[in-house]
Amino acid sequence: MTIDHLIENVSVNKSFGGWHKQYSHQSKTLNCKMRFAIYLPPQVSSGEKVPVLYWLSGLTCSDENFMQKAGAFRMAAELGMAIVAPDTSPRGEGVADDEGYDLGQGAGFYVNATQAPWNRHFQMYDYVVNELPEIIEASFPVSLKRAISGHSMGGHGALSIALQNPKRYSSVSAFSPICNPIQAPWGKKAFTAYLGKDQAAWQNYDASELMKRAKTFVPAKVDQGGADDFLVEQLKPETLGAAAKVNDYPLELAIHEGYDHSYYFISSFIEQHISFHAQHLAK
Amino acid sequence: MTIDHLIENVSVNKSFGGWHKQYSHQSKTLNCKMRFAIYLPPQVSSGEKVPVLYWLSGLTCSDENFMQKAGAFRMAAELGMAIVAPDTSPRGEGVADDEGYDLGQGAGFYVNATQAPWNRHFQMYDYVVNELPEIIEASFPVSLKRAISGHSMGGHGALSIALQNPKRYSSVSAFSPICNPIQAPWGKKAFTAYLGKDQAAWQNYDASELMKRAKTFVPAKVDQGGADDFLVEQLKPETLGAAAKVNDYPLELAIHEGYDHSYYFISSFIEQHISFHAQHLAK
Repeated sequence: MTIDHLIENVSVNKSFGGWHKQYSHQSKTLNCKMRFAIYLPPQVSSGEKVPVLYWLSGLTCSDENFMQKAGAFRMAAELGMAIVAPDTSPRGEGVADDEGYDLGQGAGFYVNATQAPWNRHFQMYDYVVNELPEIIEASFPVSLKRAISGHSMGGHGALSIALQNPKRYSSVSAFSPICNPIQAPWGKKAFTAYLGKDQAAWQNYDASELMKRAKTFVPAKVDQGGADDFLVEQLKPETLGAAAKVNDYPLELAIHEGYDHSYYFISSFIEQHISFHAQHLAK
Repeated sequence: MTIDHLIENVSVNKSFGGWHKQYSHQSKTLNCKMRFAIYLPPQVSSGEKVPVLYWLSGLTCSDENFMQKAGAFRMAAELGMAIVAPDTSPRGEGVADDEGYDLGQGAGFYVNATQAPWNRHFQMYDYVVNELPEIIEASFPVSLKRAISGHSMGGHGALSIALQNPKRYSSVSAFSPICNPIQAPWGKKAFTAYLGKDQAAWQNYDASELMKRAKTFVPAKVDQGGADDFLVEQLKPETLGAAAKVNDYPLELAIHEGYDHSYYFISSFIEQHISFHAQHLAK
């Protein structure tokens, strides 16, 4: 494959013997300039090709939140795993936006928008599933083994993308995901804007719906804080749990008493997720 | 002791089985409202009194940078250590400030200012050494065992405070500290403003000067990134190393090739610092 994408290095930081790097590039899918971050573990220095965990962040986040706050590098360095964090939406002048924090820039919801004005740039599903891995796999010393994870809106993204592409990912995990967006205020607002009022078009982006009818199973792990302010109205892990039960889907779902929606929760359990993915990536 | 300070809880997050909490209070020393953060490890739930590591942050930081980015809680939870992070200066309307990021609010330098207009509020040395521990020890289930650490300006603060108060701290450590502020642009600017032009008054706040003439030794550990942009002009670890050598001071000083001034460096080595302090706090 030739690299027909030019990526430009923005920053470099050594961390845990490996490297955190940010890059910008012109996205063909999103029709704007994008930034992503990658953590390359120390194993790449010896020429090893490492598997990649894609991390999808939540509302208002960029590529930076996870890389700065999750505390994931220690275990990624130990186990030899790269981590890639894209931005959460197309951005910049000329990209459609909304006054709400939960629609438009910073809130791409990992779908392919079909409705104007969003459809010109908001194609985050294609960006995460196709364009970004193509760039990563052509530009860095990584294998073709992929896992995917995310938080909140990004947990919805990770689950719905893995369930739609079971052969592309060895495993999927999520923290505090929006498990049933078609029944949650955040999801209803975003899907109406991006996909239109016909709810038939929403089903393919709903983790609970997808898990109910999945035929090929990607091992899945979901952790949810019991003191999360968004738990009941927006996240609905019980719906995902019920969907898994109906279909005998291999889902490890745990509610952790006292934990909230923040990175203080994610950092407490991220090493378990890194280990979970490493185990499946090694198969 | 009676708690004559009222502290008000601002936020609570469960993390690694323990609790990250922010509080605000009216500081008598600083003559303004201050915020600090504390991490309480899970051991406090069973009534155990835990030792406290005080963390002093660098220029422009608040109580939040370390708590969000350092990745210190895993080891603090394992070893049963509380961590307290104050703000880096007095703040608010009516508190003197400067246009530079390296003087005034966010840049208290952990000294007691003697010069107007700074002397009304900028008494960070007294706040960190006396008022804050008094509040912590009266308000939380902690022992009277203390260690101190910090980054950059806060590394200078930790070293100079421990060296001036060897009986108050079991151990001291620093990441990328300003080791010889009286010879560095940041230090000269701040000390001139806060302490006046008479450099005799500066000596007691210079880690290298203090280490040269120390009589009681607090075990000290310093880590410095070799690719730190501030290394040569501002930080000068070689001066601290030379001071330790002259006085046979127990200083573990290491330069780490490729690491910069960021939390990507701190997080890579923070667990070694937590372990170092735990070992000395247990004595």
